[in-house]
Amino acid sequence: MFSEGVRMMFIRGEGGACNAIFSLKDEQAANGVVTHSSGNHAAAVSLAAKLRGIPAYIVIPKNAPICKVENVRRYGGNVIWSDATMQSRESIANNVLQETGAFLVHPFNDGRIISGQGTISLELLEQIPQIDTIIVPISGGGLISGVALAAKSINPKIRILAAEPRGANDAALSMAAGEIVTLPQTNTIADGLRAFLGDLTWPIVRDFVDGVITVEDKDIIEAMRMCYEILKVAVEPSGAIGLAAVLSATFLENPAWKDCSNVAIILSGGNVDLGVLWESFNK
Amino acid sequence: MFSEGVRMMFIRGEGGACNAIFSLKDEQAANGVVTHSSGNHAAAVSLAAKLRGIPAYIVIPKNAPICKVENVRRYGGNVIWSDATMQSRESIANNVLQETGAFLVHPFNDGRIISGQGTISLELLEQIPQIDTIIVPISGGGLISGVALAAKSINPKIRILAAEPRGANDAALSMAAGEIVTLPQTNTIADGLRAFLGDLTWPIVRDFVDGVITVEDKDIIEAMRMCYEILKVAVEPSGAIGLAAVLSATFLENPAWKDCSNVAIILSGGNVDLGVLWESFNK
Repeated sequence: MFSEGVRMMFIRGEGGACNAIFSLKDEQAANGVVTHSSGNHAAAVSLAAKLRGIPAYIVIPKNAPICKVENVRRYGGNVIWSDATMQSRESIANNVLQETGAFLVHPFNDGRIISGQGTISLELLEQIPQIDTIIVPISGGGLISGVALAAKSINPKIRILAAEPRGANDAALSMAAGEIVTLPQTNTIADGLRAFLGDLTWPIVRDFVDGVITVEDKDIIEAMRMCYEILKVAVEPSGAIGLAAVLSATFLENPAWKDCSNVAIILSGGNVDLGVLWESFNK
Repeated sequence: MFSEGVRMMFIRGEGGACNAIFSLKDEQAANGVVTHSSGNHAAAVSLAAKLRGIPAYIVIPKNAPICKVENVRRYGGNVIWSDATMQSRESIANNVLQETGAFLVHPFNDGRIISGQGTISLELLEQIPQIDTIIVPISGGGLISGVALAAKSINPKIRILAAEPRGANDAALSMAAGEIVTLPQTNTIADGLRAFLGDLTWPIVRDFVDGVITVEDKDIIEAMRMCYEILKVAVEPSGAIGLAAVLSATFLENPAWKDCSNVAIILSGGNVDLGVLWESFNK
């Protein structure tokens, strides 16, 4: 299956953060930027801030994978530790903001981030205009909002499907309820997909996402393995979920999606410690 | 370093084998193809034969990495075991050829393979015309011959540098001696770079390769680690050697190469068992 029909593209994933940081006015950017995130957003904010020549303060939970912390440091970000809870992350980010005067760049609930993420669709459709379906991981909804808005502006018939882990299925529940649903707790290997929709991303998701595919953790691990063994790329659980979704019965056996024939999967995030990847294959 | 100046492209690596197999006449291809190789060539021959609808017989040494064998099977090749020595591989391939009437597609000493490999330079220079230097792993010389011929046909000023492990440095010795030098034995982690130059590839290497950079195994492992951690791709030792070469003092401190500013590195081959990769980082 992979052997004949797969084309891989590397798209620079810093679109969201670069757009956010470069669109700040000089007085907004003067004291740097702060964000709370341990994943791609953290690394991208660090890089974008470095390119603009301003400091980046990155609040990272103590339990984050080592490679994520190293990414931030590699790109020049200042690491500030928090506890794992969203409350701790947000309150420490707020402290940093007060102390430094840095500008808060929210990881997803920010129009600049959303529109920057849209550049993924621009690059994708410029190179492969025949794409009829795009599968995107969903967490806070920034990535999928940008991808959906940009793709549907170019071709309103493009189908946008979200992939979400069973143990953090707030987007599927939100779509069913017609309003933002949050969960008392989440439980999934996909550590980058534990956030809930925001007030900016929710209306976009509600109106422009055509379906949510719920994926089991074991299928996410299998997708990671396929990415490593066949595509030869390191993809973290949160990034591999789109492939798991495409291979699921939920997708393949849904009559409404039978006509999907040129499917793009966004594999976003390669922040997986090699030892952890190896262990997950041996469980 | 990686963060600002690196651009990654995925180029389909089956150019050599596809060109070889699709340029066979029907009567040549009627009984399928045979080759001896455990790496990319084996997988590519399997895939190209499948696409043409003919059988592929792949002679693989018993000590080959599991993932290489799985690649061949995934693409429909028939696996035939040999001992690890080149003599055993060649003599078993010869037996298969006699028994089946299959056509022998040599992994490197073949004009069709060489010209097919040249498509890498075409793709590369089409997308990034300003490239002034291309670093290519060297073993039997098929890949670098194709890359050098095609690149220098487009731009004769492009510098082609070979990367070779210290423990299989026959190309460097051959260049110094002005004739093909073979070694009584080889000793390197880069299992795909143990072959010696052939009578077709040697004159091309002699005339079109501008230098050979010899690399230590420890630097190859470090380059694999960088590929995994920063580029997020699985690259086998034989594939990562070009990156190790670029980062070596031999390259960076050579006054003749000071003007290299747009350097392309061909990272060819991702056939590395995940467990082996993990172990190699922990030695």
